Amino acid sequence: MPRIEPRLLKGFRDYLPEVMIPRTRMLRKIAAVFERFGFEPLDTPAIEYADILMGKLGPEAEKLFYRFRDSGDRDVALRYELTVSLARVVAQYSTDLPRPFKRYQMGPVWRAEAPSMERGRFREFWQCDVDIVGSHSLLADAECLAVDHAVMQAVGVKTHLIRFNNRKLFRGLQEKLGINQDAQMAAIMRAVDKFDKVGREGVEKELAALEGVDAAARQTVLAFLDLAKFEGGNDARIGKLSEFLGSAASGHLGCSELREVLVEARRMGVPEKHLLVDATIVRGLDYYTGTVFETTLSDAPSFGSVMSGGRYDGLVGLFAGKDEPAVGISVGIDRLLAALESASLLMKSKASASVLVTVFDETCLEYALKSATELRRAGVNTEVYLEVGAKLKKQLAYAERKAIPLVVIAGPEEIDAGETQLRVMGTGEQLRLKLTELPQAAMSRFVEPDPNTAAGRTWDWAFKPEMIERVPEVGGLFLLRDETRVVKFAGWAKYGDLRNAIRRSLGPAQATKVKTFDWYEIREDELSEALCEFVVARLKPEFNA
Amino acid sequence: MPRIEPRLLKGFRDYLPEVMIPRTRMLRKIAAVFERFGFEPLDTPAIEYADILMGKLGPEAEKLFYRFRDSGDRDVALRYELTVSLARVVAQYSTDLPRPFKRYQMGPVWRAEAPSMERGRFREFWQCDVDIVGSHSLLADAECLAVDHAVMQAVGVKTHLIRFNNRKLFRGLQEKLGINQDAQMAAIMRAVDKFDKVGREGVEKELAALEGVDAAARQTVLAFLDLAKFEGGNDARIGKLSEFLGSAASGHLGCSELREVLVEARRMGVPEKHLLVDATIVRGLDYYTGTVFETTLSDAPSFGSVMSGGRYDGLVGLFAGKDEPAVGISVGIDRLLAALESASLLMKSKASASVLVTVFDETCLEYALKSATELRRAGVNTEVYLEVGAKLKKQLAYAERKAIPLVVIAGPEEIDAGETQLRVMGTGEQLRLKLTELPQAAMSRFVEPDPNTAAGRTWDWAFKPEMIERVPEVGGLFLLRDETRVVKFAGWAKYGDLRNAIRRSLGPAQATKVKTFDWYEIREDELSEALCEFVVARLKPEFNA
Repeated sequence: MPRIEPRLLKGFRDYLPEVMIPRTRMLRKIAAVFERFGFEPLDTPAIEYADILMGKLGPEAEKLFYRFRDSGDRDVALRYELTVSLARVVAQYSTDLPRPFKRYQMGPVWRAEAPSMERGRFREFWQCDVDIVGSHSLLADAECLAVDHAVMQAVGVKTHLIRFNNRKLFRGLQEKLGINQDAQMAAIMRAVDKFDKVGREGVEKELAALEGVDAAARQTVLAFLDLAKFEGGNDARIGKLSEFLGSAASGHLGCSELREVLVEARRMGVPEKHLLVDATIVRGLDYYTGTVFETTLSDAPSFGSVMSGGRYDGLVGLFAGKDEPAVGISVGIDRLLAALESASLLMKSKASASVLVTVFDETCLEYALKSATELRRAGVNTEVYLEVGAKLKKQLAYAERKAIPLVVIAGPEEIDAGETQLRVMGTGEQLRLKLTELPQAAMSRFVEPDPNTAAGRTWDWAFKPEMIERVPEVGGLFLLRDETRVVKFAGWAKYGDLRNAIRRSLGPAQATKVKTFDWYEIREDELSEALCEFVVARLKPEFNA
Repeated sequence: MPRIEPRLLKGFRDYLPEVMIPRTRMLRKIAAVFERFGFEPLDTPAIEYADILMGKLGPEAEKLFYRFRDSGDRDVALRYELTVSLARVVAQYSTDLPRPFKRYQMGPVWRAEAPSMERGRFREFWQCDVDIVGSHSLLADAECLAVDHAVMQAVGVKTHLIRFNNRKLFRGLQEKLGINQDAQMAAIMRAVDKFDKVGREGVEKELAALEGVDAAARQTVLAFLDLAKFEGGNDARIGKLSEFLGSAASGHLGCSELREVLVEARRMGVPEKHLLVDATIVRGLDYYTGTVFETTLSDAPSFGSVMSGGRYDGLVGLFAGKDEPAVGISVGIDRLLAALESASLLMKSKASASVLVTVFDETCLEYALKSATELRRAGVNTEVYLEVGAKLKKQLAYAERKAIPLVVIAGPEEIDAGETQLRVMGTGEQLRLKLTELPQAAMSRFVEPDPNTAAGRTWDWAFKPEMIERVPEVGGLFLLRDETRVVKFAGWAKYGDLRNAIRRSLGPAQATKVKTFDWYEIREDELSEALCEFVVARLKPEFNA
């Protein structure tokens, strides 16, 4: 048989482990946020009848489908996006599904468009959608903003700005302009949409080039733009827009919806600094009917919007033949991943394993396997070097290459003593430990414990603001330690206040002497207090004095 | 536009939330096990060049591909399984990837075969593969058995049996029989493979129907079968087979490999009761070259093998044009899910949310949103009822329908007092709580805390053997409580012994009085001991007296 050249189709890519590891972690965090807000997972087939998948799209989009005849000569296609399948599901299982139906779906979609690797445009890419179907309530819109904020928090972003608008404002502007043709209004909206790229003058030029938009209309649009960017806070901006559009019914309604979404998003705990009412946001042309929003990162602005969405009341009812209002978000997975990497927010990793257990020789194999089992039982991802008889140098080179941070070594001498060597690859530091101490020692040397994944490991956290921020808002006892692990301070916190208590516990001079901290969640405040008293009395930490 | 009938292609299915929720949880647990053993995630495209995907398969299989011309007239297909793409990746990035290359991949594959919903045969289904590429070491084979066992443990199975064999034994049998034609040997192996279904007599009949297999040969095969099922433990069985096949070189090698894999799997901590050497295991015909294994559940035997795999040294080198030994496992996701359900091991759920926060009326909305935010911060999946003004009865019916176990209710009276009602849907119990107490109270009423997902929640676990088994093997303090939450016993454990210490702490009479327990992981044994002394002195638990 002739050798087949290994190759990929143009526009397709493999996700090798060094991309797949951070990507998988990010997707898990995002799914956890969706579930935290009560969204249910859904999955639908990749292949469906072409008429279903194309139901709502024009002939231009139809060209972009992977469409073919299956072996039963059915006209089928690969899904182009996830919303149309959601619409089908809602119609098909209408009475089985609750309303609102809150679902999330993550998976690949396929588009036969010209790929551009440089611009990150692929023929196969993942979509990650969350939607609320069957509710007209503006609480649902606000919840989307709250989910947006929570996703940003979960992936470690602090500089996100959720810019939102309501499409009814454009209806109001259209009324005010007295434009009858929707196509003409669409052209104006396209011009407005370019504001962030081309600025006020740029939009003015675009408008001047439009047929049928006279100088007066142009001035009205520019006045709208000025209010859209009015610098006086979100409430003032809505007030100005409302004054300006108030005479137009749609404009009035749009402004009042905008105000309500802002108020509810605040009540849901989204800080004001992450919310920006911006009436230049359009988000596509023929899809959204009310709230629209997008999300940019101040420390990675060039990536554009990493999460966006809005209300689209006309679409999900497509197959049901009845009104199914909907509001949702789409996360740009690959764009977000790239933005996080550019902002140094991505915990990169080439290996799942935190520890490589080396095998000294055949006689030491059993002990090596036992060490690995102990580490795995304690929740440490551990790889065993599989080629018995390989030189230690080769085994260390393997750890080096995969960037596995810790290596376990045990030869006959260590084994006789029931001990093992733990080598920290980054520093070359090598510790001799009892086998029973190994899991603890390995865990305590993780650079970044993640409370979402490291069940039960709540000690030896680096005493840094970013780690303190990861402490859940529970209550309990905490111990602050210096570099030799001596307890310098013991404190306790009422339920809900542990993170704050750790943050506030020391002055700057003392803080420099603390390297790590432990925390223990305790439900009863009295027990926390009593335990802390006891620890202070027993250990007499320097900074408690 | 005419209404489009919502429908699925034959052989395809939607995963609605009530299936998707337990499925997603199971897949996460399985991925965590793979990572625990140092396997890296990989993803490859769904569409590839047809010649790549079909590289290794015969014309029969080619008919089962979804194959078509893309818009660039390329001959493409949807992937039929995941191994061929692994082979392509190994060849394409050969120098970038370490050896051994340990990867896992989970994703859909497509087969245009006659679907059978009853028999669980779909045209789109998920594969979940884990492979070690580039190692001839039998440690890799044994590691697959250890991963198999760990997956079973992770999904809650206790009655699994990993039956394994080595294909070289059949080579040995072929030598012993003096059969030259591989096709004839294949027919004999097919007969042997049916042993579990048709029994010894059934196999005898099958053999009798084969041309060219005389009575003497038949007796030799039956003698082999008897040894394959010899009841005297795994070592004895290998010994018998080795005696029988020892004169044939392949048989001798096969038996010695079988023995080594058994020894290493034991050393990796797989208990003997889950391992069964069974020389009737064939696992397909033209693929495997050494170790083969499959996994059945004693409490759900009718589902057949839920995990299987083996060594296939000829395949992964397909594109590389060089030797790439490989050994791997495939988890039958859908079959495993069905088996778990049948064995009542599946935690079913229709909703992501554990709590529904109701909205009493417009004036109470802010307080409701605040309650939801507090719950989410504490890690509780929480849904807010989105239609303000709906009757409480309707809101409760929504919780009922989605089987959300807890409901929060707060009207003006509760709000004035800074309180809230927590209703347990199952019992109708309703508690009045301070808002600050709500997250704790909600968390403590979860039926099954999962230490893998519930970060930091280590209290109010049901005092049952299956929950004690979930305590990690760490050290620390534990408290046993009665139904009114009074501490009946306080204990501590050295690092590594916490689970055992909880298990051993009480006699049967006392144990009946304990309903829940808390545990606190503490690294220093002295601190655990001192804290326990203190708690005993302070709380004077009845059973410590």
